[in-house]
Amino acid sequence: MRLILSRSLFSAMHLFLIAIPLCHALLAEPSIPEVDVAIVGGGLSGLSAAKELAAANKSFVVLEARDRVGGRVLNANLTGKDVQELGGEYIGPTQNRVLALAAELGLPTYKTYTKGNSTFYRNGTARHYKDSLGIPPVGADTLVELAVFMTDINNLASTVDLEEPWNTPNATALDSMTLETYVNSKLSTADSRILLDIAISAILSTEMREPSLLYSLWCIAAAGDETGPGTINRLIGVDGGAQDSRVSGGTQLLATLLAERLGLGNIYLNTPVRKVQLKESRYLVSSDEITISARHVVIAMSPSLAIRIIFDPPLPAGRDQLNQRMPVGALGKAIAIYPSAWWRDEGLNGEGVSDTGAIRVTYDNSPAGGSFGAIMGFIEADEMRKLDTASEDEVKRQVKQSFANLFGPRVDNATDVLIQRWDLEEFSRGGPCAFMPPGVLTQYGSYLRAPVGRIHFAGTETSLRWIGYMDGAISSGERVAGEILENW
Amino acid sequence: MRLILSRSLFSAMHLFLIAIPLCHALLAEPSIPEVDVAIVGGGLSGLSAAKELAAANKSFVVLEARDRVGGRVLNANLTGKDVQELGGEYIGPTQNRVLALAAELGLPTYKTYTKGNSTFYRNGTARHYKDSLGIPPVGADTLVELAVFMTDINNLASTVDLEEPWNTPNATALDSMTLETYVNSKLSTADSRILLDIAISAILSTEMREPSLLYSLWCIAAAGDETGPGTINRLIGVDGGAQDSRVSGGTQLLATLLAERLGLGNIYLNTPVRKVQLKESRYLVSSDEITISARHVVIAMSPSLAIRIIFDPPLPAGRDQLNQRMPVGALGKAIAIYPSAWWRDEGLNGEGVSDTGAIRVTYDNSPAGGSFGAIMGFIEADEMRKLDTASEDEVKRQVKQSFANLFGPRVDNATDVLIQRWDLEEFSRGGPCAFMPPGVLTQYGSYLRAPVGRIHFAGTETSLRWIGYMDGAISSGERVAGEILENW
Repeated sequence: MRLILSRSLFSAMHLFLIAIPLCHALLAEPSIPEVDVAIVGGGLSGLSAAKELAAANKSFVVLEARDRVGGRVLNANLTGKDVQELGGEYIGPTQNRVLALAAELGLPTYKTYTKGNSTFYRNGTARHYKDSLGIPPVGADTLVELAVFMTDINNLASTVDLEEPWNTPNATALDSMTLETYVNSKLSTADSRILLDIAISAILSTEMREPSLLYSLWCIAAAGDETGPGTINRLIGVDGGAQDSRVSGGTQLLATLLAERLGLGNIYLNTPVRKVQLKESRYLVSSDEITISARHVVIAMSPSLAIRIIFDPPLPAGRDQLNQRMPVGALGKAIAIYPSAWWRDEGLNGEGVSDTGAIRVTYDNSPAGGSFGAIMGFIEADEMRKLDTASEDEVKRQVKQSFANLFGPRVDNATDVLIQRWDLEEFSRGGPCAFMPPGVLTQYGSYLRAPVGRIHFAGTETSLRWIGYMDGAISSGERVAGEILENW
Repeated sequence: MRLILSRSLFSAMHLFLIAIPLCHALLAEPSIPEVDVAIVGGGLSGLSAAKELAAANKSFVVLEARDRVGGRVLNANLTGKDVQELGGEYIGPTQNRVLALAAELGLPTYKTYTKGNSTFYRNGTARHYKDSLGIPPVGADTLVELAVFMTDINNLASTVDLEEPWNTPNATALDSMTLETYVNSKLSTADSRILLDIAISAILSTEMREPSLLYSLWCIAAAGDETGPGTINRLIGVDGGAQDSRVSGGTQLLATLLAERLGLGNIYLNTPVRKVQLKESRYLVSSDEITISARHVVIAMSPSLAIRIIFDPPLPAGRDQLNQRMPVGALGKAIAIYPSAWWRDEGLNGEGVSDTGAIRVTYDNSPAGGSFGAIMGFIEADEMRKLDTASEDEVKRQVKQSFANLFGPRVDNATDVLIQRWDLEEFSRGGPCAFMPPGVLTQYGSYLRAPVGRIHFAGTETSLRWIGYMDGAISSGERVAGEILENW
């Protein structure tokens, strides 16, 4: 009996010894798909890279963490074809890449609504005014001070070396102070200070104390094209400025139509890439579920997201330290929806500037189709941070208060209030883009666009034009594709 | 025949259908080990947390990415028991936690060698001097300016609220400028400026343009104990200062002896944690190979390493943005080894300060046992960045040049030159610790030590005493253990 038991046990173990390697073979991974280029990130930069690579007959996949393409552009579909943009929204003159893409995809643009009076809420009172200078009604001393300041900062920005900002005259000194230190040395009136505060946080989604002066100047200079460097006026401007126009059907169409053209089969959604591993002259690009083998890799996201990917071998020290040094701003968007744009009947254009509350800047956000009215406001930097842990209801309450300060009690008739909190998005962790604190651009700027082997870096942060904008994202994708094709 | 073939095929397929689930069962993961606390990071903070938890009879594992414990402390074993420290090295008065740990582990300490003259290399000439003030021989104007500056910055540091630095008087203003902006407003002579530059980069491994003033003041204030706040003098001081003493056998013994006491079976080496997942009130802590189930998790590393771990659910926005905003400094250490400390016979103590080259600060690093002589120098911030891509030989060449500037041609007789490049270490990516650029401490400081559920954050950056030092690491581990035990 004992003998039989032993033999049975032996047989069972024997079976195991055979079965386990057999099982490994049966369950083996399917063979790893091979492509020319694996593009990590399905925002406008990644998709634009894919477009150029497809045109050159290179095979590719786009690996996107979210369940949608578009990254920082996102439509909320409300009624029929009229939408609201919860992310990147405006386009304007000299944003030639995004204008070209919209035209190519057959997407008409339309002007942001500006007819009528703007509104300035200051020290507890709302005042309506005709906005000709782009500056609310303030005292002559403030007007003069701001005019001089804007001339000064534009002149300084025009000295920036766009391609190699670390070679700008006095680069180290300009990169050794915060934007706030510079502004403190130039502005003295409370009004000019608060207006500039509002403008900067609306542009960068940071407080003035966060970015370096040199980085800020670079962003200003980059807001242009080959006809000349940008100005702070263009960045804050609506008509003729960065908020000049909108895209019919919403900006996410730029991404979704592009993705359709590229072939949805080439785009893997819900696929956050965890690891990029160099193995025998190919890169293995892996999410938790799949692995792709690629000749080139494009990392098309902000540096503070790229740092979460494990690179094997590790990235060079300078590139890793750059990734550590470019945090994303804090940003939300709030949109109140109405049956119609009732403020227009009151002679207002929906443009608002406020010295207090969750929202400091608003625009009329009604869609081209006119099927409803909408007022949009940004929640920026310190204001967004204060609300990062607040409930959705509390954010809505504060947003409505901000709108009411500017436009009166009728704002309470909103049929809906949309809130988009970019800080809470796992695959953004802030918005609209990564910025550079002091000392980063001079010491690490050269790593921004430098490929590491055949790993290439895209994303609006790597652009030389319209850094942080959709236009910059597109040109970065085009640049990176060129980089790959040049050395094929 | 066809029938037979079909039947065979059918049988084979049938076998497959049975075999695959069977195989899954055979290859199933072993059951997941359960512990009270999973500690991610086997440096001094993680091991100190483990020590307190073990004393309270809690079960734990330490998951360490490297093939050794110690993190930022690392011995190079040279001859017998005489070693060199390639990471954290010095201890001094008011560093009560590290002094207590050394005593508990039976590790004697000894004074850093200071007998004889120090050396100042300035404008191409080395001068030897008796170092009584801790300041090299400079003009009276520089001496006065530096004395006034040090008094001013110490006074300002003494106003910092250690526990809640964001509540310091004028916190926002102090956090809105770089340390450099403050220094520029205080120092005018070239000598005082260069000396302060050297001191700051030796303390923080950053240039003065990188950290905010408030963060710098916080670090100064934290360099003390309950008897009073720290001073910049203590941070730069040798005798009676932060470089006062050393640990016999090298500081890594603090970690390795502690690990032995904790039981090496509880410490998993070569186990970089990739994911922390909350599942049914337990945390699943996973590397590529293993998963541990824990009631609490301790993240014992710098924020810029913690950001590479995937948290599910994601960390709250504020904690994530903090992790984005605390980069690590750039740091290397170079040590020239000699048969004996020959400079002592020349009346020199090996302490050097230089205005140029890869190394700006040196110390006599000979071990207590006296089996060889050693000169150690730091490669800091911009100097380290310049060399991040250089070959080991090129770094050694520049290091030797720096040593030769200070101590003459005899430095060429080195039998060995040790180079430790912390920027290149995959599981450090810089050194000695993470710092805060402007705007971070006031807006994100409260997230540093705040647990997220039962995820707790340790690491020297989270300490209230001796931030960035071994002492701070130990107290952070003790604090985090207390946090866990308090609410058991």
